[in-house]
Amino acid sequence: MKNSVKIYKEKTRKSFSIFEESKKYHVNGVHHNIRFFKPYPFVTKSSYGKFLTDVDSNKYVDYWMGHWSLILGHTAKIIKNKAIEQIKNGWMYGTSNQNAVLLSEKISKAVPVAEKIRYVTSGTEATMYSVRLARAITGRNVIAKIDGGWHGYTTDLLKTVNWPFNQSESEGLTDEKNIISLPYNDLEKSLSILKSIKKNLAGIVIEPILGGGGAIPATKDYLKGIEEFAKKNNSLFILDEIVTGFRFRYGCLYETMKLDPDIVTLGKIVGGGFPIGVICGKDEIMEHVNTSTHSKKTRTYIGGGTFSANPLSMMAGYTNLDTIKKKGNSLYKKINSLGDDTKKIIGRIFADDAIITGKGSLFMTHFPKDDISQITNASDASKCDSEKLYQYHFEMIANDGIFFLPGKLGAFSDAHSQTDVKSMKSATERFVSKLRK
Amino acid sequence: MKNSVKIYKEKTRKSFSIFEESKKYHVNGVHHNIRFFKPYPFVTKSSYGKFLTDVDSNKYVDYWMGHWSLILGHTAKIIKNKAIEQIKNGWMYGTSNQNAVLLSEKISKAVPVAEKIRYVTSGTEATMYSVRLARAITGRNVIAKIDGGWHGYTTDLLKTVNWPFNQSESEGLTDEKNIISLPYNDLEKSLSILKSIKKNLAGIVIEPILGGGGAIPATKDYLKGIEEFAKKNNSLFILDEIVTGFRFRYGCLYETMKLDPDIVTLGKIVGGGFPIGVICGKDEIMEHVNTSTHSKKTRTYIGGGTFSANPLSMMAGYTNLDTIKKKGNSLYKKINSLGDDTKKIIGRIFADDAIITGKGSLFMTHFPKDDISQITNASDASKCDSEKLYQYHFEMIANDGIFFLPGKLGAFSDAHSQTDVKSMKSATERFVSKLRK
Repeated sequence: MKNSVKIYKEKTRKSFSIFEESKKYHVNGVHHNIRFFKPYPFVTKSSYGKFLTDVDSNKYVDYWMGHWSLILGHTAKIIKNKAIEQIKNGWMYGTSNQNAVLLSEKISKAVPVAEKIRYVTSGTEATMYSVRLARAITGRNVIAKIDGGWHGYTTDLLKTVNWPFNQSESEGLTDEKNIISLPYNDLEKSLSILKSIKKNLAGIVIEPILGGGGAIPATKDYLKGIEEFAKKNNSLFILDEIVTGFRFRYGCLYETMKLDPDIVTLGKIVGGGFPIGVICGKDEIMEHVNTSTHSKKTRTYIGGGTFSANPLSMMAGYTNLDTIKKKGNSLYKKINSLGDDTKKIIGRIFADDAIITGKGSLFMTHFPKDDISQITNASDASKCDSEKLYQYHFEMIANDGIFFLPGKLGAFSDAHSQTDVKSMKSATERFVSKLRK
Repeated sequence: MKNSVKIYKEKTRKSFSIFEESKKYHVNGVHHNIRFFKPYPFVTKSSYGKFLTDVDSNKYVDYWMGHWSLILGHTAKIIKNKAIEQIKNGWMYGTSNQNAVLLSEKISKAVPVAEKIRYVTSGTEATMYSVRLARAITGRNVIAKIDGGWHGYTTDLLKTVNWPFNQSESEGLTDEKNIISLPYNDLEKSLSILKSIKKNLAGIVIEPILGGGGAIPATKDYLKGIEEFAKKNNSLFILDEIVTGFRFRYGCLYETMKLDPDIVTLGKIVGGGFPIGVICGKDEIMEHVNTSTHSKKTRTYIGGGTFSANPLSMMAGYTNLDTIKKKGNSLYKKINSLGDDTKKIIGRIFADDAIITGKGSLFMTHFPKDDISQITNASDASKCDSEKLYQYHFEMIANDGIFFLPGKLGAFSDAHSQTDVKSMKSATERFVSKLRK
C-alpha cells in the first residue's frame, strides 16, 4: 500500500498541485464528501467512453461512471452531438420547451406509474418532494426509510444513512423524530416497527437495491410485504429508483417484481449525466401539486426551480433513452452479463475473503469481518472491512489504471467490454497475492 | 384583453398543441408553477441575445431572462463556445475538476465572505444547507426569514412566501414551527419578534432585495439593524444573494452596505444559466462541513449530489464571470441605467396608477389598490392589483413581442439596448390608452 501511494503521488503531480489549490477554496477540496479519498483525489481533465483522463494524462477505466449515471459511457457521441445542437439553440429558456414532452413520452411509456411527471434539478429535490406529497395526501407526518437507505441530503430523509444508524447523520437537523427506519430485508421486524406508528405513517421510501448502502437488492417478498402494509394502512409506497431506473432494463425495477408504487423517483440515467430529478406518480397523487386547481390552502407546493426541465437536460435525457431503446435488449444483456461475470470471477479469486453483492451491471465487493456470511442489509455491509476495500480500490487506481471511487460500488456501461473484466481479474489476482504474501 | 387572447391564440397554434400534449404528461403542463400563464404559455424553440423564439417562430424581447440568470443575454457566444468545448471533453466526470477551482478563484476575489465555497446543484439546495449550518453551529432550531422572502422550495424555508402569510404554503410540512417570519424593512417590529425567540434563534435568512416578493430593496438601516441583532445574539446572519449576486456590480450587494454576513448563498448568474447553487462562508463556519476533520457525531452533513460542481456548470460560470469582469464597469453601468430609465419612463406613463420598484437592471410594476402609496415590503406588494399586472404583461406578449413572465419582475441584460426601452414605452402607452378608454 505504501508503495502504491508513492506510485500514485509520482504519477499525479499536477493533480496534487491543483488539489492543493482546491483546498484553499473548498471544504476538504471537494463538492461531494464522497469524492475525497486519500492521499488526494486526482483531478479529471476529460472523459470519453470507458475512460477518465486526469490532468497528468493518466487514463483510468472508470467504474464510477458519473455516480452511475452514464450507461452509454462517458461523452457518448450521440448525446454529445444533440447537447451541442441544443446549446447552440440555448440552454436556459426559463419557459416551456418541447424537449420535456419528448422525454416524458419515453418515460411514461416505460414506467407505468408515471401518469404524471415533474422534473426538478436533482435527486435530492425529487425525494424531498415525494416526502412532502406523502405527508400532504395522508395528513400524517412519519416517513419510514431503510437503515442505510440513501436519498440525497434532503432534511426530510437525512437519518440512518451511515453506520452507526442510531447516531444522527448531522448536527442541525430538527425533524428527525418524523423519520423512522427499518431493517432491510427483515420483513417481520420491519412490519413490527411500521405497526407501532401506523396511525401516523405517511409513507415508506425504499430503494429496490440499496445503492450507497452497499449494492444490496431487496427481496421480492420484502418489497411485496412492505407494499401490502402501506396499501392497507393508506400510506404511500414510494420507490426511489434514481439508481435502478433504466439500469437493468428499459424501465424500472419495480415492474419485474409486480409492485405497484404510488410514486417513483428517478434521476441519473434518465438525464444522460445532465442535472435532473424526476417525480413520477399516479394522476390522483400528482393532482395535489396542481396550482391551477388547488388553492394555497389545499395544494402541495412542489417544484420547480430555475433549472427544472431546462432544455439541455431534457434533450440529453431524451437522447439517452431513445438510444437505449433502439439498442433493444442487447445493451442490457451485455452490461448485465459483464456484471455477472465480474461477480463470479472476483468472487472466485477472493474465495471466502469477500462477498460480492449487486445485480446485473452493478457490483460491490465486501470483505466480511466477524461472523458475517451473507450481506442482506446495510448493517451487514457496515461490519465489513472498509479499509481493505479502500486499499483494493486504491491499488487498482495506482497500479492498474482502474478507477472505482474507493469504497463504492462499480457499474458497467456500454463502453466497457470483456477485456475490462480480464483486466480487473488480473488486478484482483495481484492484490490477493500481495495480501497473502 | 379578450382581443389580445384571440391574437395570442392565433399566433401560437403550435405552442397550443404542444402544450396540450405537455398537459397529458405534466401537472398543469409545467415544471415550475410560475411558468404557467393563461390561456397557455407559449413553447420556446430557441433563445438568442435578447430574444426568445417560440415554436410558431414568434420572437419576444425577453425580460424574464432565464429566471434572471442570463446577464449577458441568451446563448451568449463566449459561454456557448466554452460550453461546447467542455461538452466535447465530458459533462459528468463524477470526480474533481479544475473548472471549479477557476470559478472559485473568481468568486472568492469578488465576495469576501467566500473564504470557503461549496457548489451544489440548485439554489434550493444552497439555502437548505445554509439553514442546516446555522442550526448546527448554534445548537438552536429557529430560523427567521422575511414575509414574502423566497429561497426555493426547501422544507426548511417554505413559509410566508405568498400572501396571506399566515396561511401555510403547502400541505405536508411538518417543521413550520421552527420558521418565524419578519416584516421587511420594519426594524422595530422585526427586532421585537426576534427578541421574543432569541434564545432559540439559529439564524436569519434575508434577500437584500426581495426577488419573487416584488423587487423590493431592503434599506441599509434595516439590514444593519438585523445584522447587529444577529451578531449580538450569536445567531448566523445569512444573505441570500442568489438573485442579487453579480447583478448590480461585480460581486455581491452586501458589500455596498458594509454588511458582514456569515454565509452568502449564490446561484443564477454565477452559473451562466447552467445548474448551480453556491454556499459561501467564512472558514470557521464552513469547517463544520469538513468530513475529514469532523466525525459523524460533530459534522454538519451538507452537499453535494451527483451534479455538484459538474465541469459544465463550472466552466459556464467561470466564463460568465470572467467575461463580466473583463467588461469592467461598462456592463453594469449600461444595464443599471437601462433599468433606471425604464423605471422613470414607465412610472411617468402610469403616473399615480403604478409604483415601479427595483434597483438597477431589476424592475417591477405594481398597481396599488386601497391606500398603498409606497411599496416597502411584500404585504404592500400583495395588496396591489395582480390581475392588472398580468393583463399589462400579457398585452405585451400578444401585441408587442415583449415577454415578461406575467406578474413577475423584469431584468435587463447586456443584450438589451435603449431601443428596447423605447419599445416598452410605446407598448405601455398603448396599454394605458386602452385602459383609459
